[in-house]
Amino acid sequence: MIDPVFLDSPQYRCEALEPALGCEVSIKLETANPVRSFKGRGTELVASQLAEAGSRAVVCASAGNLGQALAWSGRRRGLDVTVVASRFATKAKLERIRALGAKLELVDGDHELARERAAAIAQYDGIRLLEDSLDLETCEGAATIGLELVEGTPEFDTVLIALGGGAMATGVGHVVKELAPEVDVVCVQPLGAPAMTHSWRRRRVITTESTNTIADGVAGRFPIPEVLDDLLLIADDAVLVHEESIVTAMRLLLDHAGLIVEPSAALGLAAVLEDPTRFANHHILTIICGSNVDLPTYQRWVNPPS
Amino acid sequence: MIDPVFLDSPQYRCEALEPALGCEVSIKLETANPVRSFKGRGTELVASQLAEAGSRAVVCASAGNLGQALAWSGRRRGLDVTVVASRFATKAKLERIRALGAKLELVDGDHELARERAAAIAQYDGIRLLEDSLDLETCEGAATIGLELVEGTPEFDTVLIALGGGAMATGVGHVVKELAPEVDVVCVQPLGAPAMTHSWRRRRVITTESTNTIADGVAGRFPIPEVLDDLLLIADDAVLVHEESIVTAMRLLLDHAGLIVEPSAALGLAAVLEDPTRFANHHILTIICGSNVDLPTYQRWVNPPS
Repeated sequence: MIDPVFLDSPQYRCEALEPALGCEVSIKLETANPVRSFKGRGTELVASQLAEAGSRAVVCASAGNLGQALAWSGRRRGLDVTVVASRFATKAKLERIRALGAKLELVDGDHELARERAAAIAQYDGIRLLEDSLDLETCEGAATIGLELVEGTPEFDTVLIALGGGAMATGVGHVVKELAPEVDVVCVQPLGAPAMTHSWRRRRVITTESTNTIADGVAGRFPIPEVLDDLLLIADDAVLVHEESIVTAMRLLLDHAGLIVEPSAALGLAAVLEDPTRFANHHILTIICGSNVDLPTYQRWVNPPS
Repeated sequence: MIDPVFLDSPQYRCEALEPALGCEVSIKLETANPVRSFKGRGTELVASQLAEAGSRAVVCASAGNLGQALAWSGRRRGLDVTVVASRFATKAKLERIRALGAKLELVDGDHELARERAAAIAQYDGIRLLEDSLDLETCEGAATIGLELVEGTPEFDTVLIALGGGAMATGVGHVVKELAPEVDVVCVQPLGAPAMTHSWRRRRVITTESTNTIADGVAGRFPIPEVLDDLLLIADDAVLVHEESIVTAMRLLLDHAGLIVEPSAALGLAAVLEDPTRFANHHILTIICGSNVDLPTYQRWVNPPS
């Protein structure tokens, strides 16, 4: 059901990154597709099921990537797509959502307020609410990444996955632990948005009052209990990284891999930068999960005025 | 014989590029692999044949991408690889050639001098000279791009191909004209390195005294007669573009597709920018053939000091 344009994404070793990181580095590149993130895998599942069931509309809250992907998948199946996002979201993401013909509603608050508002719209309009990470399709979409990762014998011993709501971590993690249990699954979250990591560590939902990170794609405050349960089954570790490490990792990917990535996509390498001893002589793989950035902002991050 | 890491590269529509170009735009992304260019397809063929025949060494002249790819393909098969390049070549390309364990010899002149020197080394050492565009493997490697382009029914009506020595143009072009003859094959070269385009137009080899372009990957002066013969069979047109258009196209790919590309990879979109009427309402596909740039230079191109 997933358009092939989202499948079999590039997966390759980036030796040019290795001297700076002190380990072998492979990447799974989820940005070379029409929506520049991995989210199309999941929205293709949702939209095709809705179209088959004769539904006409769907709504989701999104930091931008899920909304863009749902707009793309919904448009080609004649679905009315509504996306609720924070008015502070990355402009490039909001522009693409609009350009793809979705209805975009902005809330004057963060992603958690957008989630509330999307739920209200779904109830009022009687349409499907797509809840990222809670709805199985979003995890199953990510799980197809996992299947591609472990095809053949994986050369890596550790996979580093950005952790936000948990769809990617649980989707990829389940497959990896099932098919290649010897591979370590390490989730990485910013210190400025640590709710799910704290929850994983204490084995119960911990919420936070606010978030403070440039990694917009993973900045949630209210972990979903069912997703935490899943995460507890599959994650070998969950680590928190500083903003400076995220920026350094983005800069490394630019300098040595020629890749523009959004902050969430740099979390894996940020974790290596913060704990080089742990990963020394390992072969890590990280998923480059998105590249939707506001370019002027991106350029300020990676080229700070001296 | 080609490592799968080079095959089935991403091919997708980039709607965000379309308002600026006035036509439908798809790209074939040949940069998401360990050598960041399409050249690995051809060097995999050469290196595997050499290894099978028990050869131990190979030499080539290169602006950098062929050399890097040959170094990669040769290393994993135990071949001694020598690359001859201009000392003015892109530093990042030269660094990667060295990092991959090849012997790098620099000449104090342009690519044509490097070709002479590589031929001399091959003769003196009695080893295989890999001649880009003349040696069929380099065209066959590129031809595998063509096979992927026309799989299923191509949605594009025009393919825009960077033209240098001619391996990519003839390799891709032969397959496209064979399997999808209705698709227009348009080769694009910089006005500052027009030898092959002039030759194609006059149907005989025309050489130039010098080159003057930032598109280092296509800056040749001495077209190979056999390659010209091939090009005459498959190209529907060959056009020349200004340096300014190449830079504008690079900037568009950065702004709207999130892609860092080398100048040669922007030639196709430069051609659209220079003749929007011709391509209006067409669906063009262009091959993003490489992303190996010196980043400070790249940043000067796309962000000129105001």
